Amino acid sequence: MINASIITIGDELLIGQVIDTNSAWIAQQLNSIGIPVLRRVAVGDNREDIIQALNQESASVDVIFITGGLGPTADDITKPLLCEYFGGKMMLHEPSLQLITHRFEQIFKRPMTERNRKQAEVPDCCQVILNHNGTAPGMQFKKAGKLFFSLPGVPFEMMAMVENDIISLLSNQFNLPAILHRTLITHGIGESNLADLLVAFETTLPAHIKLAYLPNHGMVRLRLSGTSINEQILCDEIDFLFRQLSDLVAPYLVASSDAPTEKILGDLLLKNQQTIGTAESCSGGYIAHLISSIPGASAYYKGSIISYDNTMKTAQLGVPAPMIEAAGAVSEAVVKKMAEGLLDRLQTDYAIAVSGIMGPGGGTDEKPVGTVWVAVGDKNEIITKRFHFRFNRQRNIQQTAINAMLLMRNYITSKN
Amino acid sequence: MINASIITIGDELLIGQVIDTNSAWIAQQLNSIGIPVLRRVAVGDNREDIIQALNQESASVDVIFITGGLGPTADDITKPLLCEYFGGKMMLHEPSLQLITHRFEQIFKRPMTERNRKQAEVPDCCQVILNHNGTAPGMQFKKAGKLFFSLPGVPFEMMAMVENDIISLLSNQFNLPAILHRTLITHGIGESNLADLLVAFETTLPAHIKLAYLPNHGMVRLRLSGTSINEQILCDEIDFLFRQLSDLVAPYLVASSDAPTEKILGDLLLKNQQTIGTAESCSGGYIAHLISSIPGASAYYKGSIISYDNTMKTAQLGVPAPMIEAAGAVSEAVVKKMAEGLLDRLQTDYAIAVSGIMGPGGGTDEKPVGTVWVAVGDKNEIITKRFHFRFNRQRNIQQTAINAMLLMRNYITSKN
Repeated sequence: MINASIITIGDELLIGQVIDTNSAWIAQQLNSIGIPVLRRVAVGDNREDIIQALNQESASVDVIFITGGLGPTADDITKPLLCEYFGGKMMLHEPSLQLITHRFEQIFKRPMTERNRKQAEVPDCCQVILNHNGTAPGMQFKKAGKLFFSLPGVPFEMMAMVENDIISLLSNQFNLPAILHRTLITHGIGESNLADLLVAFETTLPAHIKLAYLPNHGMVRLRLSGTSINEQILCDEIDFLFRQLSDLVAPYLVASSDAPTEKILGDLLLKNQQTIGTAESCSGGYIAHLISSIPGASAYYKGSIISYDNTMKTAQLGVPAPMIEAAGAVSEAVVKKMAEGLLDRLQTDYAIAVSGIMGPGGGTDEKPVGTVWVAVGDKNEIITKRFHFRFNRQRNIQQTAINAMLLMRNYITSKN
Repeated sequence: MINASIITIGDELLIGQVIDTNSAWIAQQLNSIGIPVLRRVAVGDNREDIIQALNQESASVDVIFITGGLGPTADDITKPLLCEYFGGKMMLHEPSLQLITHRFEQIFKRPMTERNRKQAEVPDCCQVILNHNGTAPGMQFKKAGKLFFSLPGVPFEMMAMVENDIISLLSNQFNLPAILHRTLITHGIGESNLADLLVAFETTLPAHIKLAYLPNHGMVRLRLSGTSINEQILCDEIDFLFRQLSDLVAPYLVASSDAPTEKILGDLLLKNQQTIGTAESCSGGYIAHLISSIPGASAYYKGSIISYDNTMKTAQLGVPAPMIEAAGAVSEAVVKKMAEGLLDRLQTDYAIAVSGIMGPGGGTDEKPVGTVWVAVGDKNEIITKRFHFRFNRQRNIQQTAINAMLLMRNYITSKN
């Protein structure tokens, strides 16, 4: 079985200035063509550490992905180091120079410097992967039967090279097995209770199919992962087990795929040909952002009124000022009125309204930080729920959005 | 010098189902007390791979952080494996059992199972770090002079243990040097041109201070990083160099710290005691979310009208329907009218309005995917700009938000 490792290079990864999203994305792509990733390693812009990583990873795996350190500045040392490691000499790569020149002339519309020109130089022992989205060429090396790909750290430059060139290159070169994953999402049951429920099921799993539990945001995702040289047999096996698993957790099942909550809600609205809008205070537009981040959301999402300030709750959503005065902005009465005001003004089928205290400031004894009132409903009925999240501001906002969308999803499901 | 490595455990990291945010956060914390992170490694829930990682990392560094694999289900193998690796026996840890019991009785309000009880078992060769936010205890081990910390993978559980226990433990145990970083942000100049501008400056840097270039979203961050046993001398040195650097890039300087754009804009509004609101179409509430994600944003942020649907542009922002019909929703006229409508209705000092096509569908020859009109201004003047982003939907939304906020920031700066 062919397997891989991903080396990410950059001091910014080791001081925590940047979160590594490239590795997860590359891992997904490799998995989809049957190459499991055994390890991911991040090292700094440091000669010895990069060489050690190259030696260690190529000792354990067949394909090594390297991202980062290909920029035009002094802290980018990956390219000359790889040239030396693979025993080459630097040479100008004409097609890359043409692409870079084109970028400066047609897109940037500013003069190219000697430093930009040097980006077209590559080791003569590599095969170049053209960069159509930036200035640093990708490179492929071979050594002792191992394959190395060095790619820029800028995500969309790297992604285009993997999608357009490397995936087909690897698929053609190796006879790869199938790797399949099936994920479902549960809500309303803890990881331990789920595990107790699934004791007998787990004992029936064959050795090449694994079950994983991934708890987050009050939900638990269950993933079946299998590997086999025969894709059709594996597909039948894993589908059969996935149906069994789905039946076992049926009372808690929210989705039969690894979709984010906004996609689950959106698919439901799309199926029902219904529309939605949000009236948000404490979540400040995050629910609107999540709903509208799904391609095609315009079919069911009309818009939102983000009434962060109380004057907006009154002027734009019709919440009476005396009600806010009496009950407080974070109250069942106000959040219900926000939902009604939104339905009235936007004429959507459904509304989500939230008001709460996200912290770090603003809490009181009666309404501590993390208190959130959520209202969901339609013109016939609006239901409300009070939450108390105990996290930091960022996570309180996330929890508010996800729980509000889940409440909306459950409301719609119960009515249809 | 004491240094560290971070091992994250979990198949979900290697199939790309989860993005690792823990490592970046731990690295920041360690840096702040003078412990550089040399490497980060991710491995699956696999016995041999975990043992190999423990051996390799402890051969290179002094302190090893391990996160993940401590849950109550069969796929979580870290705890028994560490017990064996460090030569211990499992025993019940009474204080942890009390905390877990308390969680089930007081917070979850559901019966505790045998599986939950087992989470209070730890190897007798470890020192326990109590988990006040979850059920898996943290563990500290020592072997051959190296220190190991095993922590849960759930971010806020891990974070509380590091902040409340481990940081002071490490600071007391070792005589640590100072590590300082200073970052500034530039806009309107490319990485290569910046490097040309800074050639002479870079040659004056002492060996213990490094300059890094971090391009993203059309901006380039410049970071000076230094290490020294004498914090005061290092602080003076790096501050002096940082002032020189700031002067050299003054025409392009957007911020003198590593703040996100929404913080830069928010600080400016706070300083001027002015208010803002947003009228968003294609960005769907993402600008509102970013602005309101900053603690204390209620001092300057009033709210937003997210007019995803054209009927909302007319009903909630007063954009005449014939104008949308004639010019199209993605046009200079409409986006200007959206900004005016928002200023009129919300009575804020400033407004940001955006309308565009984020993709993957919806593009035309005249207005291809990625076309965005942005308007920013106040009641006296509104300026507009057309952008053409060439990325996927998610990144087009991000680019729209960041460029709109930068345009607003530059507008405010030019008027004050």
